[in-house]
Parts: sequence; C-alpha cells; structure tokens
Amino acid sequence: MSPKFSLDPFEGQYAHRTSNMLSSEIRDLLSVTARPDIISLAGGLPYTQALSPEIILRTVRAVLEEDCAASLQYGPTDGYAPLKHDLMRVMGAEGTPCFPEDIMITNGAQQGLELIAKVFINPGDSIITEAPSYVGALNSFLSYQPRIHSIPLDEQGLRTDLLEEKLGELAREGSRAKFIYVVPNFHNPAGVTMSRERRFRLLELAHRHDCLVLEDNPYGLLRFEGDPEPSLRSLDEGRVIYLGTLSKIFAAGMRIGWVAAPHPILDKLLLAKQSADLCSSTFTQMVAHRYFAGEDWLGQVEQLKEIYRGRRDAMLEALEEHLEGIARWTRPQGGLFVWVTLPAFIKAPEMLAAAIDAKVAFVPGTGFFPYRGGENSMRLNFSYADEDTIREGIKRLSKVIKRELSLARAFGHDLDPLPEKGGPDGMTGG
Amino acid sequence: MSPKFSLDPFEGQYAHRTSNMLSSEIRDLLSVTARPDIISLAGGLPYTQALSPEIILRTVRAVLEEDCAASLQYGPTDGYAPLKHDLMRVMGAEGTPCFPEDIMITNGAQQGLELIAKVFINPGDSIITEAPSYVGALNSFLSYQPRIHSIPLDEQGLRTDLLEEKLGELAREGSRAKFIYVVPNFHNPAGVTMSRERRFRLLELAHRHDCLVLEDNPYGLLRFEGDPEPSLRSLDEGRVIYLGTLSKIFAAGMRIGWVAAPHPILDKLLLAKQSADLCSSTFTQMVAHRYFAGEDWLGQVEQLKEIYRGRRDAMLEALEEHLEGIARWTRPQGGLFVWVTLPAFIKAPEMLAAAIDAKVAFVPGTGFFPYRGGENSMRLNFSYADEDTIREGIKRLSKVIKRELSLARAFGHDLDPLPEKGGPDGMTGG
Repeated sequence: MSPKFSLDPFEGQYAHRTSNMLSSEIRDLLSVTARPDIISLAGGLPYTQALSPEIILRTVRAVLEEDCAASLQYGPTDGYAPLKHDLMRVMGAEGTPCFPEDIMITNGAQQGLELIAKVFINPGDSIITEAPSYVGALNSFLSYQPRIHSIPLDEQGLRTDLLEEKLGELAREGSRAKFIYVVPNFHNPAGVTMSRERRFRLLELAHRHDCLVLEDNPYGLLRFEGDPEPSLRSLDEGRVIYLGTLSKIFAAGMRIGWVAAPHPILDKLLLAKQSADLCSSTFTQMVAHRYFAGEDWLGQVEQLKEIYRGRRDAMLEALEEHLEGIARWTRPQGGLFVWVTLPAFIKAPEMLAAAIDAKVAFVPGTGFFPYRGGENSMRLNFSYADEDTIREGIKRLSKVIKRELSLARAFGHDLDPLPEKGGPDGMTGG
Repeated sequence: MSPKFSLDPFEGQYAHRTSNMLSSEIRDLLSVTARPDIISLAGGLPYTQALSPEIILRTVRAVLEEDCAASLQYGPTDGYAPLKHDLMRVMGAEGTPCFPEDIMITNGAQQGLELIAKVFINPGDSIITEAPSYVGALNSFLSYQPRIHSIPLDEQGLRTDLLEEKLGELAREGSRAKFIYVVPNFHNPAGVTMSRERRFRLLELAHRHDCLVLEDNPYGLLRFEGDPEPSLRSLDEGRVIYLGTLSKIFAAGMRIGWVAAPHPILDKLLLAKQSADLCSSTFTQMVAHRYFAGEDWLGQVEQLKEIYRGRRDAMLEALEEHLEGIARWTRPQGGLFVWVTLPAFIKAPEMLAAAIDAKVAFVPGTGFFPYRGGENSMRLNFSYADEDTIREGIKRLSKVIKRELSLARAFGHDLDPLPEKGGPDGMTGG
C-alpha cells in the first residue's frame, strides 16, 4: 500500500506521496525569476508575443457567431470532433498518419502523461525513461510509484545499446518494462534528436520485449535545419502511444494536447479522462479549431522557427564566446533547449543561488533525473528571451561559473575543467 | 496491488481499472439523446443560451487588449491570482468566508474530486458518500479503489443518525473514514438540501471521528426559494475541503472550478495538479476574471434562477398531473435535478430503452450508487429543456411507466404501486 496523504492534517502526520523532481528549495529560488531584473533561461515558455491579438479576436468572434451556447457548454470527453480533424492535419505536416478516431484531446500533453501513468502503472512496475528526461513526465510517473530505469542519451538520442542491456536484465529477472518514454525530437531538456537508426532499433527492442513506447513530440514542427526523422508512430502504430500538443505551435494558455493511440488503449484513457475532469474546455477547443481550420498556422510556425533559430544561434555563439573550453553543450536542430555540462566538481543546484544574485536563472540538471544525476549540468531555454537578452544572460552565467571554477581551484581541485569525453555532454552517467 | 491496464494490448489481456458507474449499455443508450427528436431529461447541462455572445466577446476583447501574450501563456499551477479574488466574492455571495490564498483553481470541480481522490485514497481505505451520490465523484473515488460506505439521504439530506452508526461501526473495527463526501445544496441527483441541524450534526460527528468533510457546492447560488443554510466551510474551515465551480453560474465550457482547503492540504493538491496538467487554461481564467470583475454576474444568476424555477415548476406540475399516486419525487428548492422513485418492481435501467423508443430520456438511479441500489429510481434534469418540452417529456415518460405498470400487473405483481413510506422517496435502502 502506497503511503497516502494522512487524514490527520490536525496531527501533522503528512506523508509525501506526490513527488516533485525539483526540490522545494530550488523551486523557491526559481519562483523569483519572474522579476524583471532577472534574465530567466530557466522556464520552458514559448514566445506567445508572436501571435497577434487580432487573430485571436477574429477566431473567437467566429466561434461566438457560429455557436456561442455550444462553446460555453460541456463537450464530449474525447474532445471536439472538428478539432480532431485539424490535429490530424498537424500530425500530417510531420508525416505522421492519424485518423480523428485515433485521438483523444487532453489539457496539454501533460494530462496525457498523467492519464497514461494512472492507467498503466502499479506500484513497483518497471518503466523506462531517458536520462535526463522531461520533469513533468517524471512527476506524473513517480506519483504512481514505479521503478524508473533511466537510459542515458548521447547526441544520437537514446543509447539503444544500453536500452537493450536493461531490457535483457529485466527479462532475466522475469520482469519487463510497461513502457519506454522518449522525446525523440529536440529533447527536453537535452536538446538532442534521436537518429533514424536508433528509432528503428528502439521499436525493434520494444517489439522483442513486448513493451509499449510513449512518443512525446511537443517540438517536432519546430525544426530549424536538417531533415525530419520519421515519427515512431509512423513506423509502428500498434505499439506507440503518441503525445502531441498545441502549446508550442499555437498557445500554451489554451491547454490543448492530445493522445493518439491504439483504440483499446484509447478506451481506457477515455474513462480516466472522464474521472479527471469530464472534458477539456469546449471554448478553447472551438477557438483552436477556428485557428487551425481558418488561419495560416503553418506560416505562424515558420515565423516562430525563424525567431527561435536566431535565439538558439545567439545562445550557442555566446556559449562559445564565454565558456569554450570550460563547459560542453548540445547543439539542438530545433525546439527550445540547450543542455550544458559543467566540470564534474561544480554542483549546479548549489550554484543557482549565486546565479540569481548575478541576475540570471537556469534549471539545474538534477531536476531531470528521477533519483539522482545531473549535478554538474543545467538546462537553458532559448525560446523566451530575445537575442540580446540571451547574450547578456550567458555572459552573466559565465561569470558565475568562472568564479565557481576559481574557488574550486583555490580549494585544490586540480583538474581539466572539461567534463570527460566518455559521457557525451555529461548525459551518460550523471 | 491494484489491477492495472495490462501492457499486453496485443494479447488482449486488458484489466479494467477505471470503473464507471453507468454500464456501457446505459451509456450507449444515452449517447443517442443528442438526437433532436428525443426529449432529454438525462443530462446535467446548464442553459448556456442564457449568456449573450456580446458579453463573452466584450470580455475576450478586454483580455486581449490588456495582455494577449499572457493569456496565451502557461500560468501558475494554483491559478490566475486576480480570478481567485473573484472566487472569494462568489463564495462571499453565499456567506462563505475565504481568502484568495485558500484557493486552488481546477478544471471544473471534477478535477478537484480527482486530485483529492489521488492524494487521499489508498486501495481499501474507507470513505463515506451519500446514497445516491454524484456519479462523477463516485467515478473518481472508485478509480483509487476505496471501500465506499453509502449513507442514505432523506428530505433533510444526509441521514446523520445512520452516519453515526456507520462511523461507530468503523471505529469498532479499528478503522475510520478518510473523508465524508456531501453535496449539501440541491443535491445531484437527489435534489434535496441538508438541513441546518444535520449540518451541525455532520461536523460534530466528523470532529468526533476525526475525518475530513468534502463539501461539493456546484448549485448553492441557484436557490429559487427559502433561506440559504450555512455552508459547512463557514462552520468549520479547518475540517472542510470546499469544491466550487463556475460551470453552473457562468460557463461549463470554460472548465473552471476551485478547491478551498486548509493550506497543508492545498499544498498536496497543488503538487497533484502540477502532475495532472501543469495549470488550467490561462485564457479562460482571464476571461472569467474579466466577466466576474466587470459584468453583472449576479444579475445573470438571477436570470438563470428565474428560468430554472419556471422549468422546475413545469416539471413538478407535469409529474403531479401524470404520475400522482404512481411515483414519488423530491421538490428541490434550487439546482438542476428532481429524483423520482417508482414502484419497487419497476427496473428503471430496463425501462430506459422503452423510454428512448418513446422519445424521452432519463438517467436510471443505479448510476448514482457505487455498488448497487437505485433500481427503481431515476434522475430528471430541468435546467436544459424549456417548460413546454419538459411537460411533453414527462407526459411521454408517464406513458412508458404506466405501460410498465400494466405489464407488471398482468404478470401478477399485486401491490400498492407507491414505494414504501419508510424510505423517503426510496432513497434509503435501494
């Protein structure tokens, strides 16, 4: 029996059950990052300023003219049907086939993760994630008390050789993983993209060991360069649960995501969604439908990509200027994040307070590991701040890092400050 | 370990975990009630036609002018702060004190129920609900596998004498209930309101047996007559978790509800909310704030009450005209629902197909009991259809019931068709 919140709030016997990767200390530190004098590279916020109020007003007006009463009413648990057709086209823009009846609409992809965790995970069940992995997914999973097995990433994405070892190990125990959770494109937090070869290998291993694959694809359409890799769903529809979201290509504040899955799984998720909140907002679903059916949404995505590409370049250039030879970092072909690995003796969580003193914020890498790891790494976001702000932020950050380095040297740390080559970007191991 | 959805979708080993009170058969039958030729008294839909598109457009325009980018962005997990001030005023309109910092905003009250279930219920834990009880609450609770103890209602609400017996019984077992879930005002589905005396008695018993009380109050402001009773929260803030919603006084399609609770409980719910979906829609929260801060929302509630009062009267008159001496029913002072009890030998779930043939729909009472009960009862909704439609719907329904009665008599059922006096409106027992 899992330890649940005690019913004795009056006796102070609270049991922690819902875990959170970010320690409360770090959360407290990061809560100040909304202050205008602090440059935050910490969040994962899309640049919603790119979407004009006129377009939103136009779509809302169209919805209200068409059927105001329906937009204010409860809707079907699986989502507003016309929007499912739009989501099919959104997936089609990345070459992923999907029918509307394969889709359930959720409150952002996060709700999809939670419902999948609720439906699949019993306490003690094994599941597999990448290391590092998306903190929101880890939170949802951990709240249902699985054993999480973390498989390191490198520049080609999930280390499928290590995945194979782990799956073999579980098989020898007579056990097996319920699912393998991956973010194949422009990984959060690592910024890397899974190679085509690894995608095929992952699905082959999943098939051999009979486990499902969760493909979380929030950033796929935000590719700045290079050719897109095929989605896992497009390679094996029967084994993959696909998670999509409009948060990064339209508006996070509308809270619209979706799950595309084999129908027997979708039926279970639907019952869980009904318990969770009956249905998602009809109003925001109808507005999103008007937007994707009637506006130049692909043009808007192009505009976002141009903005984000410039910001990524600014970040990579500034990193090179200020931290070359001191740290290592990933070079994302899209998405929102760069992962920076610092010398092993630097503890990023402890450095955060100094960074905030220097008016710059990041997320310490430890937040992206379920149990431990990532101490000398950090996630930097390039989607929200503008290019000059990003340059200034990296400059401030580099000063903090260099001060930590001098201190460490003064205290006798004698070493090549660069992290070992063996673990590419420090993502392996931790 | 609870039986979870199997990971073998390919081997057909699905285990049911997320339960649903309405059998799939009944859900299939009710799914046709959207057909225009069927008069549906089955749903729980508010009359959203009462809210004008102009008002919604005005509030949206104001939001976009004020801060479009913020409305499209992620927001704080606990909700949009200015809206919390409005919710405080909404609670104040019913005499319930609350501070903004006591509130977490959710996707309708349903999400509050789910998060509470997740945080509090371990498999096998005892909880207490009314009988009948709100089907959405039962679904959320049951998905975490508690033992539900159902305490009957009568015209004065929860039978606190029977509650006392049950709590005593649990205490003698060395056990106790984690919480007691009640809908004190214009109960869904029963339509009854808990008397003042019973409210005090309930809190006294909860105190003596040290359990929390969940007060679900979606309809409190929709009182057509009589004096309001004090909310449970207003009587004992430290022991009550209060659930509110804007679905019945503003727009269900915006999916805005809230939980007001002691802070240590709120902290736990906040972590669960973060896993569940990061945050509710900033867009709909900002629209709701504009509406409640700038529009005559109390005037709108008055208008809704007038409409619903007329529809309730139409339903009660039609019941009297067509079913006097055959069935019994509750006389709600507000809200959306009437509960009808039929002679004991009539099985409402089996009668539903005949009713739909006769172009009228209701929800069989069985949907509102966790395990069994309610076979000869039904819930009728009076908020959605207009007065003439309600009259016609009851007329159709009465014909179906009378045909069932004749059939039953032909098969030798020899009895006073009226349900026993002992169980007021058939709610006790089942």
